[in-house]
Amino acid sequence: MAEIEIGQSKRATRSYSFDDLAIVPTRRTRDSEDVNIDWSIDAFKFELPVIAAPMDSAMSPAQAIAIGKLGGLGVLDLEGLWTRYEDPAQQYEEIIASDEHSANEVLQRIYSEPIKPELINQRLSEIRDAGVTVAGSLSPHRTAEFHETVLNAGVDIFVIRGTTVSAEHVSENSESLNLKKFIYELDVPVIVGGAATYQAAMHLMRTGAAGVLVGFGGGAASSTRQILGIHAPMASAVADIAAARRDYMDESGGRYVHVIADGGLGTSGDIVKAIACGADAVMLGSALAKASDAPGAGYHWGQEAVNPSLPRGHRVHVGENGSLEQVLTGPANDAFGTSNLMGALRRAMATTGYTDLKEFQKVDVVISPYRAQ
Amino acid sequence: MAEIEIGQSKRATRSYSFDDLAIVPTRRTRDSEDVNIDWSIDAFKFELPVIAAPMDSAMSPAQAIAIGKLGGLGVLDLEGLWTRYEDPAQQYEEIIASDEHSANEVLQRIYSEPIKPELINQRLSEIRDAGVTVAGSLSPHRTAEFHETVLNAGVDIFVIRGTTVSAEHVSENSESLNLKKFIYELDVPVIVGGAATYQAAMHLMRTGAAGVLVGFGGGAASSTRQILGIHAPMASAVADIAAARRDYMDESGGRYVHVIADGGLGTSGDIVKAIACGADAVMLGSALAKASDAPGAGYHWGQEAVNPSLPRGHRVHVGENGSLEQVLTGPANDAFGTSNLMGALRRAMATTGYTDLKEFQKVDVVISPYRAQ
Amino acid sequence: MAEIEIGQSKRATRSYSFDDLAIVPTRRTRDSEDVNIDWSIDAFKFELPVIAAPMDSAMSPAQAIAIGKLGGLGVLDLEGLWTRYEDPAQQYEEIIASDEHSANEVLQRIYSEPIKPELINQRLSEIRDAGVTVAGSLSPHRTAEFHETVLNAGVDIFVIRGTTVSAEHVSENSESLNLKKFIYELDVPVIVGGAATYQAAMHLMRTGAAGVLVGFGGGAASSTRQILGIHAPMASAVADIAAARRDYMDESGGRYVHVIADGGLGTSGDIVKAIACGADAVMLGSALAKASDAPGAGYHWGQEAVNPSLPRGHRVHVGENGSLEQVLTGPANDAFGTSNLMGALRRAMATTGYTDLKEFQKVDVVISPYRAQ
Amino acid sequence: MAEIEIGQSKRATRSYSFDDLAIVPTRRTRDSEDVNIDWSIDAFKFELPVIAAPMDSAMSPAQAIAIGKLGGLGVLDLEGLWTRYEDPAQQYEEIIASDEHSANEVLQRIYSEPIKPELINQRLSEIRDAGVTVAGSLSPHRTAEFHETVLNAGVDIFVIRGTTVSAEHVSENSESLNLKKFIYELDVPVIVGGAATYQAAMHLMRTGAAGVLVGFGGGAASSTRQILGIHAPMASAVADIAAARRDYMDESGGRYVHVIADGGLGTSGDIVKAIACGADAVMLGSALAKASDAPGAGYHWGQEAVNPSLPRGHRVHVGENGSLEQVLTGPANDAFGTSNLMGALRRAMATTGYTDLKEFQKVDVVISPYRAQ
Repeated sequence: MAEIEIGQSKRATRSYSFDDLAIVPTRRTRDSEDVNIDWSIDAFKFELPVIAAPMDSAMSPAQAIAIGKLGGLGVLDLEGLWTRYEDPAQQYEEIIASDEHSANEVLQRIYSEPIKPELINQRLSEIRDAGVTVAGSLSPHRTAEFHETVLNAGVDIFVIRGTTVSAEHVSENSESLNLKKFIYELDVPVIVGGAATYQAAMHLMRTGAAGVLVGFGGGAASSTRQILGIHAPMASAVADIAAARRDYMDESGGRYVHVIADGGLGTSGDIVKAIACGADAVMLGSALAKASDAPGAGYHWGQEAVNPSLPRGHRVHVGENGSLEQVLTGPANDAFGTSNLMGALRRAMATTGYTDLKEFQKVDVVISPYRAQ
Repeated sequence: MAEIEIGQSKRATRSYSFDDLAIVPTRRTRDSEDVNIDWSIDAFKFELPVIAAPMDSAMSPAQAIAIGKLGGLGVLDLEGLWTRYEDPAQQYEEIIASDEHSANEVLQRIYSEPIKPELINQRLSEIRDAGVTVAGSLSPHRTAEFHETVLNAGVDIFVIRGTTVSAEHVSENSESLNLKKFIYELDVPVIVGGAATYQAAMHLMRTGAAGVLVGFGGGAASSTRQILGIHAPMASAVADIAAARRDYMDESGGRYVHVIADGGLGTSGDIVKAIACGADAVMLGSALAKASDAPGAGYHWGQEAVNPSLPRGHRVHVGENGSLEQVLTGPANDAFGTSNLMGALRRAMATTGYTDLKEFQKVDVVISPYRAQ
Repeated sequence: MAEIEIGQSKRATRSYSFDDLAIVPTRRTRDSEDVNIDWSIDAFKFELPVIAAPMDSAMSPAQAIAIGKLGGLGVLDLEGLWTRYEDPAQQYEEIIASDEHSANEVLQRIYSEPIKPELINQRLSEIRDAGVTVAGSLSPHRTAEFHETVLNAGVDIFVIRGTTVSAEHVSENSESLNLKKFIYELDVPVIVGGAATYQAAMHLMRTGAAGVLVGFGGGAASSTRQILGIHAPMASAVADIAAARRDYMDESGGRYVHVIADGGLGTSGDIVKAIACGADAVMLGSALAKASDAPGAGYHWGQEAVNPSLPRGHRVHVGENGSLEQVLTGPANDAFGTSNLMGALRRAMATTGYTDLKEFQKVDVVISPYRAQ
Repeated sequence: MAEIEIGQSKRATRSYSFDDLAIVPTRRTRDSEDVNIDWSIDAFKFELPVIAAPMDSAMSPAQAIAIGKLGGLGVLDLEGLWTRYEDPAQQYEEIIASDEHSANEVLQRIYSEPIKPELINQRLSEIRDAGVTVAGSLSPHRTAEFHETVLNAGVDIFVIRGTTVSAEHVSENSESLNLKKFIYELDVPVIVGGAATYQAAMHLMRTGAAGVLVGFGGGAASSTRQILGIHAPMASAVADIAAARRDYMDESGGRYVHVIADGGLGTSGDIVKAIACGADAVMLGSALAKASDAPGAGYHWGQEAVNPSLPRGHRVHVGENGSLEQVLTGPANDAFGTSNLMGALRRAMATTGYTDLKEFQKVDVVISPYRAQ
């Protein structure tokens, strides 16, 4: 990869976001109906390559069930409102009603309530009872504390998700989670991330993870770039980590670790480009928070917004956009790229002549920075 | 063409839009009056290198006649309002009166009315009776169903237009249109597209088409980039397909297939640049929808906006801009690049020292991204 | 110069505007007071390297005198209001009072009044009587008709200015001005342009011109880019034409043709960069139209805005900014880069360690596209 | 460094600003608590790598003391309000109350009051009495006049700060400050700048300076780019000058001159990137003017705004943002990157796996131009 000189003592590579790219049709076309967007990870098979991000604005137990029934995978945040409060209805209302200037403070206060292990158990049971795949997430630094509760409650897929998760976290004051050992001992597949580079993802793949989340808190509600100066332009990050998947598959003698784009997927076009750059599936936050049946009622926020000393995200108004079903599988009756996300994916694949996701990772792309008109 | 690495597993080329370019005068100047912008395709000769896009906002039978009399070619959408409704006046009114949020739903409903073969016949006869060149368009998936009606009604030029038209459409459930066989059997010249790449256009040229439309629904009313992630930056697409024209002419022993830029031509400057990049003629949608006598009354929408499950365009307000005549041949009395489009083309050619369109395809251009002031 | 492939049949070079550049201090600093910005062309010496553009919004006979007394050169448009109307006060008022939508129509009407040779004589005499250098301008296609009037009236410097002026204009219907012959026969120095490229400027230099205007109607009031697709990014144009000056000086055995940046010089920073790219002097339009004593009273328009069939510019509101003296030599009491233009030039030269204009053409620049904050 | 051709007679390098860059995590992560951001210059040790810019909007004697107690270094402007007025409260009020259009004029008038040597003495004593490190700044052209007063009053660190400070200032009319001789004779460490290039900084390092300020008046309140055309894109400037530090250390046999980024550091992300590009510490102006206890009461202006004939900056409204303590060390209760600046730096370092500032200068960066959403 060509390096560019920033100045005489510093070099950098050029990194691309989805907005810098477009897909181009270069060959025969297909019917949308002939396109297959099934996706499997470990023993679990999904009709849609969509994982709902564990964010309280988008996911409740009910909504996790709904997405499971629609063919995707819902992931409940096991450190969120639903495991801190018996009935979080009032907390949702308070967050939604807060004005723009005080939203972070309200979030900081509400999320200071301790997590209740019994609620972890109760929420996961509720999802399991509905007959869909059960998945819950913890952040790395809570995983040691709560993972047994989670495993006892029973999950099909375990998600460890933070802004950056490294295979080796070093701490001088506390014992760090040994991811490799932890994943080895678990008997459920683990999806872990975010990772933003080939190297970081390669290390995560070597821990035995079934899937790696690509991203660094770059979603609609995040301000990590302004606050930390850290940003993972998604197109390059996905394409780099897809290369790590290939190389790790070689190194491991055939283990295929799924690459899941997480963050910055605001429109169906972004989802299409994530797959085009090499993702196997996508994790959606704000896109699902826009569902009229999402618990956030048109508002969206992430875990990074609740940090008590350094919040790195906002509560943002994303509006409502039809039911979860319309958002995922249509029909759409507007043209903003926020409804019938999967219909758009099928259509983009058909138009460019592809009928399955793995092949579509090879579609031609061009660099053409997007400008709002 | 130099490839750029997006990430370790993905490469792309840089693609340019008209806004990225400017034309530069490098030699002697000419008088505008000495410039010839005649254009011929097959046996048909036109004073202006302009085809009106088959879009209901811009074209009615009356407007198709008007543009023919002004020296261009009007193309009626044979799947639009004029072949679904005996008198579409009320439908136009409803579309125009709808508010922004419900416009797509209104379009979806109005365009769900079936197409009437007898109206195809009636509309084309009306145009023929006026003594101008008759052209109508169908989308690829309607062509099998209605082309006989169209041919029986009589057209001089047949247009097959979709967002992407490939020479080989593959379907598992229905028999696809065999474009090559179809065009071979027709006895009228066929213009077909959109195509966005050298390869796609080359295949279309090999079907026997007289002209290829370059584009991918990238016009003013389109949101395919947001929805499908697909975009064909027009300057690069035209320049690539002009190369296909040259190579196909060699391969075919001299058949010259016309390259027609279709989409994203919002100003006369864009038209100038389309020719400069290698187009033989341009297909105009929103530019003509701005005529005060256009049926859309200041509004513009395309076929992609009416899709029942995945609309990929909006009804947009484009305003009114003087009569069709003023739009095409002036005089202009403002300076927005939306009136006297052909006067501007003549002037640009004269200023850079060219007197015919084919020569003007060689004019010097520079890359200089446009910024709104 | 490296060529970039737009598409397989078209190549282009990357061209830069002043906004893409910044100057960087790399060496010793100087006092502003030690900086010399004198400029001479032919036998005429000026304290300031500033020519006022022949535009009615900025120049009247009185204002041409004022700029002469301040040390610059005023050029009166000899095809403008002052040679069409005995007293254009009412016309100015009408232009200024017209609303935005009808301004072009008002201009078209007012400028359709014929030019009066006796007024050419009268205006130039008025300037001469004030004791300053006398300069007037004609467009190329009026030069044949009026140049004798102008020469009889007496000018020190003759300016032939159009959006593009080529050394060889070809016309099928009328006899074109033979610039070389014309300039040879004149006994006053001629400044001619715009030219946008090395080649075009080289040809103009070979006509015997004393100075070449670099530009293509790219000023604040112009919309040639939207209308004609033509644009001359000024930094590259000036740097290319400065190379033509050097090469022509060699070819001609020592004739130094002045390079004058004309257009797109909105701030003192732009003036600084024009010199830095190789200009000997600058021609200012909107910058001087902002003077509170300019005849345009806060409005600005160019000759291209009055074209009867294809206006290529607008009347724009530029506001008022202190007297012409404050605009040129200060003091400034705001910080928008529109007052004390020459003080800013001195300061920029001092800060980067230069004390005369010719040396300052070598100052280091970096590419760093400007973004509004 | 690769040069790009602007035009045939001018070349330039591409220069980068912080907004063009992002940091990427590529390795193990750490705890924020394990991160050490101590910084030492000469014999002085600071808990935070932060110097407050000598700007009246951010610094008063009281605020200089406050920042000292918080672990940073406050620098009082010894040519500002506090040394011109016995009690500048009324002047602050007038500046703050002035309307946008007259703010520069008000500043010009207020800062025309002479500097009182006895007030220099008094202000510095006040800071010294509080037990914090004492630092004051003069501009180069006042240094000769007032430096003895300053030294007699007693400073621990002396700052010479101008938009551009060169090692060799040449003047025809007055004797220039011989920086090398001056610094040699002083017995306190001197921090000097701005410098924008390797060469300029290398010369300053050779004067014996302890630290070099990198920048060219590019802060929030500055308009030098519009007015002078001069701009120092900070990422490239810091990386170039960090190379000068390395080369000078070699040349001098081990003298380490501190590189201090000064200007354009609006968010904590910018501070992170300044260190990542090679800075040892940062000088903050507008960031500290946002403190609710800053004397500017939500307004910010710099020395360049008060210039009597060519002001090159504005008084800008920056708002209030919590106490100085919250701004520097938190806690933050919003997510704009303007509070808990040091917490953000720690977090960015921890996330990318670094525990000290010097090592963090090696962190990986990518080029990814920022776009506002």
